[in-house]
Amino acid sequence: MDSYQVQPIGYVHSCFKEKFAIPRQPALAPAARGTIELLAPYNQPRALEGLEQVSHIWVIFLFHRAQDQQHRLQVRPPRLGGNQRLGVFASRASHRPNSIGQSLVKLDRIDSQCQLHISGIDLLDGTPVLDIKPYIPFIESIPDAWNRIAEQPPALLPIDWQPEALSSAQKHALRLQEPLVELIEQCLSQDPKPAYQTPAPSRQYGALLHDVNVVWCYPEGGGILVLAVEQIG
Amino acid sequence: MDSYQVQPIGYVHSCFKEKFAIPRQPALAPAARGTIELLAPYNQPRALEGLEQVSHIWVIFLFHRAQDQQHRLQVRPPRLGGNQRLGVFASRASHRPNSIGQSLVKLDRIDSQCQLHISGIDLLDGTPVLDIKPYIPFIESIPDAWNRIAEQPPALLPIDWQPEALSSAQKHALRLQEPLVELIEQCLSQDPKPAYQTPAPSRQYGALLHDVNVVWCYPEGGGILVLAVEQIG
Repeated sequence: MDSYQVQPIGYVHSCFKEKFAIPRQPALAPAARGTIELLAPYNQPRALEGLEQVSHIWVIFLFHRAQDQQHRLQVRPPRLGGNQRLGVFASRASHRPNSIGQSLVKLDRIDSQCQLHISGIDLLDGTPVLDIKPYIPFIESIPDAWNRIAEQPPALLPIDWQPEALSSAQKHALRLQEPLVELIEQCLSQDPKPAYQTPAPSRQYGALLHDVNVVWCYPEGGGILVLAVEQIG
Repeated sequence: MDSYQVQPIGYVHSCFKEKFAIPRQPALAPAARGTIELLAPYNQPRALEGLEQVSHIWVIFLFHRAQDQQHRLQVRPPRLGGNQRLGVFASRASHRPNSIGQSLVKLDRIDSQCQLHISGIDLLDGTPVLDIKPYIPFIESIPDAWNRIAEQPPALLPIDWQPEALSSAQKHALRLQEPLVELIEQCLSQDPKPAYQTPAPSRQYGALLHDVNVVWCYPEGGGILVLAVEQIG
């Protein structure tokens, strides 16, 4: 069987420092922002000429933390509760042949260093980028296409805050110059844990966003309660 | 720089036997049909379980006839007439870093041999497939996204037929059990030649669709005249 070599053209810098709590699709968390840093020779204006004329781009990337040598035929997507199997080609799961992902993100701007500022991302920090392509709405927007497995966005959980956690998030938002409160609410409301888990209210979960650790639990009344937002390192 | 190995999971069988006259985007020629033949171990129902629940799929593939070792920064897309340059990342052109293409096609059916029957394709026969992913309309259909470079489908040329060419196309359509007349009209009306060429009416062009060679010219009054449709080989 033929095999081919691919090489990153750049890397993603992302607010998501670990896989847990990353939205399962792009656009579900508009406050999730990052940049693409291109490698030479692509880090020059000539390679990007014209890209300012598009609102959204496809990022073709490697799921670098999900590479495995098995030939996986089925996956258990979180959308189906995490305990039901589906053919790997019927899913967008990260464990898949060739480990290639594609993600449609908003292109906010290109800076003078040729960094691409993107939002609505679902990309892990350090993701190797293989290609960038412009989105073509008249071809790729097919509203009457159907996908019975993923018909609509997941239902959202209500988010409540411990007062100190909220004021801490607001303080770090100012320091980071990032919409941190919105980011936490958008990511957690999609419920990062596998849907089939029913944790005790005393169980705490954590995820790293930018350089803060966000801690939450599932209180008895339902929803999510944010307990703490603490800078790490 | 890290490099990664990728291996085809299957190959495309397509009505397009050469690059010339392939529509520049998928969906522009709904009569363009083909199949994806999966390689072991992916050629079994388990790998495809659930895929019958989606109308469209992304095919991630290699532009196997456009691979080159140069680090190309700019391209001359046919849409801009073929003589104006654009950054490679602002274009979907086939000559690009890593030679990876992505194409959104209609999934018509999956047969008992696990072959995927697809239409609206813009894929060359023999294309190596790296991955197949379900289309997710609620995420990937963004009608108000904008792309000022490719705002709408290209203007179509009117197609006229020499009577013998039309009856020949109808005869071969029956033999092939394919919508050959529609395929020829859909492909040629997009004008396969570079837009900046103004050929003499005596100049003949040809392209191979399925196993027939289609010959046409650009008559003085405008549009395209199909001159002949001949089985080859």
